Amino acid sequence: MGEISCSTEPINGVLSRSSSSPPPSGYRKSCWYEEEIEENLRWCFALNSILHTGSTQYQEIALFDTKPFGKALVIDGKLQSAEVDEFVYHECLVHPPLLNHPNPKAVFIMGGGEGSTAREILKHTTVDKVVMCDIDEEVVEFCKEYLVVNTEAFNDPRLDVIINDARAELEKRKEEKFDVIVGDLADPIEGGPCYKLYTKYFYESTVKPRLSQGGIFVTQAGPAGIFSHAEVYTCIYNTLRQVFKCK
Amino acid sequence: MGEISCSTEPINGVLSRSSSSPPPSGYRKSCWYEEEIEENLRWCFALNSILHTGSTQYQEIALFDTKPFGKALVIDGKLQSAEVDEFVYHECLVHPPLLNHPNPKAVFIMGGGEGSTAREILKHTTVDKVVMCDIDEEVVEFCKEYLVVNTEAFNDPRLDVIINDARAELEKRKEEKFDVIVGDLADPIEGGPCYKLYTKYFYESTVKPRLSQGGIFVTQAGPAGIFSHAEVYTCIYNTLRQVFKCK
Amino acid sequence: MGEISCSTEPINGVLSRSSSSPPPSGYRKSCWYEEEIEENLRWCFALNSILHTGSTQYQEIALFDTKPFGKALVIDGKLQSAEVDEFVYHECLVHPPLLNHPNPKAVFIMGGGEGSTAREILKHTTVDKVVMCDIDEEVVEFCKEYLVVNTEAFNDPRLDVIINDARAELEKRKEEKFDVIVGDLADPIEGGPCYKLYTKYFYESTVKPRLSQGGIFVTQAGPAGIFSHAEVYTCIYNTLRQVFKCK
Amino acid sequence: MGEISCSTEPINGVLSRSSSSPPPSGYRKSCWYEEEIEENLRWCFALNSILHTGSTQYQEIALFDTKPFGKALVIDGKLQSAEVDEFVYHECLVHPPLLNHPNPKAVFIMGGGEGSTAREILKHTTVDKVVMCDIDEEVVEFCKEYLVVNTEAFNDPRLDVIINDARAELEKRKEEKFDVIVGDLADPIEGGPCYKLYTKYFYESTVKPRLSQGGIFVTQAGPAGIFSHAEVYTCIYNTLRQVFKCK
Repeated sequence: MGEISCSTEPINGVLSRSSSSPPPSGYRKSCWYEEEIEENLRWCFALNSILHTGSTQYQEIALFDTKPFGKALVIDGKLQSAEVDEFVYHECLVHPPLLNHPNPKAVFIMGGGEGSTAREILKHTTVDKVVMCDIDEEVVEFCKEYLVVNTEAFNDPRLDVIINDARAELEKRKEEKFDVIVGDLADPIEGGPCYKLYTKYFYESTVKPRLSQGGIFVTQAGPAGIFSHAEVYTCIYNTLRQVFKCK
Repeated sequence: MGEISCSTEPINGVLSRSSSSPPPSGYRKSCWYEEEIEENLRWCFALNSILHTGSTQYQEIALFDTKPFGKALVIDGKLQSAEVDEFVYHECLVHPPLLNHPNPKAVFIMGGGEGSTAREILKHTTVDKVVMCDIDEEVVEFCKEYLVVNTEAFNDPRLDVIINDARAELEKRKEEKFDVIVGDLADPIEGGPCYKLYTKYFYESTVKPRLSQGGIFVTQAGPAGIFSHAEVYTCIYNTLRQVFKCK
Repeated sequence: MGEISCSTEPINGVLSRSSSSPPPSGYRKSCWYEEEIEENLRWCFALNSILHTGSTQYQEIALFDTKPFGKALVIDGKLQSAEVDEFVYHECLVHPPLLNHPNPKAVFIMGGGEGSTAREILKHTTVDKVVMCDIDEEVVEFCKEYLVVNTEAFNDPRLDVIINDARAELEKRKEEKFDVIVGDLADPIEGGPCYKLYTKYFYESTVKPRLSQGGIFVTQAGPAGIFSHAEVYTCIYNTLRQVFKCK
Repeated sequence: MGEISCSTEPINGVLSRSSSSPPPSGYRKSCWYEEEIEENLRWCFALNSILHTGSTQYQEIALFDTKPFGKALVIDGKLQSAEVDEFVYHECLVHPPLLNHPNPKAVFIMGGGEGSTAREILKHTTVDKVVMCDIDEEVVEFCKEYLVVNTEAFNDPRLDVIINDARAELEKRKEEKFDVIVGDLADPIEGGPCYKLYTKYFYESTVKPRLSQGGIFVTQAGPAGIFSHAEVYTCIYNTLRQVFKCK
């Protein structure tokens, strides 16, 4: 009975070096999302699947199902929020002002299209009206469809989703007052879409007049790390304290 | 009219360093498939989407839509075939034997579940019967569904798709003869699924008796590079020339 | 006058597609250090150079000159400390206990081979004796040679570098007392080299007796993030408060 | 006797999840050189060390000690040549013309700064003069220093290394004839440094007149793959056959 003939080496020797042999323990093959945090620094997370990639009028959006972080929303190439820990950001944004207010009923969200800020606000049973005003309809629709954790919030009758520029919307609602106004926006980059929503003028002329007696304004303010606080946090803080009595 | 207040630096200076600023030209963010060719060598290709990942009874399969190579079939973590150039392999496997045979009518494919080998064979108008015998039904179904380039071939009435071990199938068909038998199999790895389909004994006792007068046997034989030919090519060549009169 | 002849396409068309053309803006080519934080999560930082890679009796060590973080010390494949921000860890470890002690003179460092903990301690002018006891002589020598930021500390006559197991060393010094004892050790992993330096028994029978009246013990206690605090921080905290009166 | 106290989970459970635990089998951490072959395709090879990175007047050069390929020379971000297989290119470039010439004595190398082409030529004992003319002195010096495999060639008294533009040098040597002229240059990219060394005019007016009776001209001509041959190979071939009688 014959076998495979090797003129040069015994079969085991030859074949064990074959590139087609089963992967050695620890052999890797995988799909990765790779984000450049800065030019010389990346992070990479393994992917289960690419749920969606696309462009809206305002930004590029993608939703990935990642192995380490669950579903992850990426806007303009930057990880915005991940299933496994988005609650940290959203709880910290929402609950301090709502718990500090004695009886929050009406809340206005500038931005917040993902729906998670609304979800946290709606947990407060005193709240009977939430206006969420985001400029990008496609992101809102996209999150409504994919982020099942926010489905209940999107369907809550107390929530009113408005597609508009938050500044224009607040200016339009001259007769309304809100107990809490929440800024859940991108960082203020000169020339960027949200820059005008972080100015002293906007806070004084638009935000403050819409707050009811004892009303509270809260805004995300970018990273506050030992180096990164200088990026936008310090600016926003310094602007805020010129307009509001800070807690 | 107020602006964002920065106590430390002028706004431009601060904000232009922001990690949230729009990506500089050339900024990368992307999804990648990464394959370890060997422990210290990888290649990575950018992904449009992950069309499918799963396991069959015999192997792990995935289909990716890659940016550089189009749809790519990955089996057990190794790129098998890509839309953009699979024709090179399949044309080279099929057309030399079929053009060398004066009148090929009946062809047997050992393996070939992807469907591309059948597609090339069916281009020969003399051919009136192709038996494609692959052991992995799920791969065949999967390729039938996703590889639209082979849809027509899968639907060709001359093609008979059999799910079986190719050796068992050839042994069973004692009365049949084929003008061309094509080996479109994984490499012969000791203990691997295809090892027995590359032995001298198999060629002598099973393949050769199924060839009609003037019949031709052809098999893929692994990489034939300056170093890689020693992996399996040399073995297969040396085995073949003990059994067949080589052209 | 002749030119390069192209039978198929005009030169510009052909050559502009050449793989040898100058890189487009944003083209990347670089050397990277890649660390798997966990199986499905990596970070990668660009390298200027690989200053050293090697193994000691106890661990693998490497020193890289990285683009984003300056010189970075990697032990057993994990980034330990980087030039650009190691001060954050070392200042936080050292200055609270030394500032809380009314007159710290004698300090004992368990571990600390990198030299940065000693550097911070030696900034306190009351200190007249620092015993730094690390088990791995090669790491100490290596850091002395490469980490120029600690050169002055290593040469300070108040510093006594001992190569020994910190527990053995403390037990040996039965007659000595220290005003501050600092644990600058790897995390307590069962079976790992430092596990016994985090036990209640060790704290009670060895550390506490070596503290002078009003003496302070401080130890690094691993990451304290929203998820990661459960890894070792909680354990260490719970152990410490059974032995010491915590501030 | 005490132990580490965990209020929440048994120690094993907690600690086995620790990010500080010894790497599982197959855990990767490494230094990599990553080259973008095109925008959506990369290859990466593991590094032992970065031997040199720098810029000359003409190009960026780097020498890496790679795990899969040994020492690798990278020019302008593209892998040029690697220790493990550079002989394939250089043997194929040199030996066919030198073996086809009945008595090669004088050889001129256009480019070839790496030294490997000279090394192969000098193996021919009939050769008594090799002029190697490269424009980039720093590359030549760099290769002389680092590529020990070419040390003997660089020291061979038959080799004359000239730093000059190969065209200018050939034009200057009006009275000299060479038995073989070898083009070991970068690909002809419009506007690139070597473009004029691939034109019909150059071949006719400069190269051909410098060849002795029965002299042979050979040039590298870029990749000749199933797709890549269209990049520069076809152009060079079509140019050459208008000037030379091709073998």
